[in-house]
Amino acid sequence: MKIVKTIAELRSTLAGPRANGARIGFVPTMGYLHRGHISLVEISKQHSDYQVMSIFVNRIQFNDPKDFETYPVDLKRDFDMAEAAGVDAVFLPDDAEMYRAQRTFVDIELLTNHLCGAHRPGHFRGVYTVVCKLFNIVQPDVSVFGQKDIQQAITIERMVADLNIPVRIIIAPIVREPDGLAMSSRNKHLGAEVRERAVVISRSLRRAEELIAQGVRSAGDITASMREIIESGGPSAIDYISMVRYDDLQPVDRLEDPSVIAVASFFGSTRLIDNMIINKTNGGYACIW
Amino acid sequence: MKIVKTIAELRSTLAGPRANGARIGFVPTMGYLHRGHISLVEISKQHSDYQVMSIFVNRIQFNDPKDFETYPVDLKRDFDMAEAAGVDAVFLPDDAEMYRAQRTFVDIELLTNHLCGAHRPGHFRGVYTVVCKLFNIVQPDVSVFGQKDIQQAITIERMVADLNIPVRIIIAPIVREPDGLAMSSRNKHLGAEVRERAVVISRSLRRAEELIAQGVRSAGDITASMREIIESGGPSAIDYISMVRYDDLQPVDRLEDPSVIAVASFFGSTRLIDNMIINKTNGGYACIW
Repeated sequence: MKIVKTIAELRSTLAGPRANGARIGFVPTMGYLHRGHISLVEISKQHSDYQVMSIFVNRIQFNDPKDFETYPVDLKRDFDMAEAAGVDAVFLPDDAEMYRAQRTFVDIELLTNHLCGAHRPGHFRGVYTVVCKLFNIVQPDVSVFGQKDIQQAITIERMVADLNIPVRIIIAPIVREPDGLAMSSRNKHLGAEVRERAVVISRSLRRAEELIAQGVRSAGDITASMREIIESGGPSAIDYISMVRYDDLQPVDRLEDPSVIAVASFFGSTRLIDNMIINKTNGGYACIW
Repeated sequence: MKIVKTIAELRSTLAGPRANGARIGFVPTMGYLHRGHISLVEISKQHSDYQVMSIFVNRIQFNDPKDFETYPVDLKRDFDMAEAAGVDAVFLPDDAEMYRAQRTFVDIELLTNHLCGAHRPGHFRGVYTVVCKLFNIVQPDVSVFGQKDIQQAITIERMVADLNIPVRIIIAPIVREPDGLAMSSRNKHLGAEVRERAVVISRSLRRAEELIAQGVRSAGDITASMREIIESGGPSAIDYISMVRYDDLQPVDRLEDPSVIAVASFFGSTRLIDNMIINKTNGGYACIW
């Protein structure tokens, strides 16, 4: 596995495989890898021949400089996990390589005012900008984003379509613990007792799936029922339970095709998120979660 | 010469030449071609093997919808001129092909508050966004922009650097009438008498070049001298005579390396622009205008 620190070196590293007809797969990360990241590489390998992973803690997407400075780093472990997963090249630029005097930014109007964007001004702009840069640097054929961060995945799809970026975006399924809790590096902060109660989040999604199968279409009815289930687990707070249109993440009153139901809730002091994508199928709706 | 209306068809048109190792040159236009556009193609041919020209009147860069609706169109003449200039493929998308439900925009902070951006909110955002889209659609090796619209040329260079777009931007010299007046489709609006007086604009740039050669470095001194010359031609108004830093287009008090001196002035009811780029050389400054 090659570890490459400059844009020029990455481009020359990729020139060979590309000239030989290899399809380039790309998984952007901020490092401190966990099984979720590795699942993205595994899906990328199903669609491409040469795997690039970037590890770059992207300063411009942090609202609080302290969060940026204290972002966890464990490169040795990251490299081991990436190599074991079959990554061919890790792109590991430093801040100066990525940002000299950046004044150009990519932003998406309207999409980021709901869900997780509400309290993070500029966060998504920082994400779009770095992903756009990385796509131009790597020029991948496919790039994989996790459904776990559904707002990021959908808005990146939107950016790629709107800016005509020649890359195929794949949204990878959420990796779950046996009881259904979505995997997250935050889960380790949950005490054993709180951890057990947190299962109500995925259980609420299962309830939503059942209601939709029974013909319920009202966002109010579905989210009220989900709220009841989550409250039974004693969350310290529920941030949101929302049904939104897939295309623009705007709230809807009744189920549309396609839609997303997204949840954010605190258990103890840990904020947990989860979601499902709902697509119309022959004679019903498919819920992907 | 191929005329291509869809993104998919353009991509497949370019796949062949690209696979054969042809370097793709790209000149974006809004049509209604004049000799300035053709000079861009000629420069592009010096640096690439296959010439793409886009003709697309970009709705989102117009502040006034009426200006968009009344933008002149003469495709028959454009095709003849493009073919004669050696263009291989014209990309002629309609509005729906380029903009379905565009919500993603590219913008550059700070650079557009001076010069021609001051009174056109959103104009440059529309330009950056469409050029970014076109670069992703055409994926050219080189793309040529005219020095005449220096603010556009420099900010596109900046966008390309900031977003790591893999294209080389070439800034083409200003094409001038024998007396020095920069060519423009607007010159035809000048009556014969006004047209003659308008020569003071390029003459003021020549004066700036002389002053710089004599060692004058003060922006105030240089622009005051230029103003005197332009006023001698009886302009109906002078919009600006500015010395700005090349990199960020911010006004400077003293000549820096590199800098730009830009002029916008009305003669009759016609707004004319002109400019020079100033680069430090061994033992002096080179003025490109």
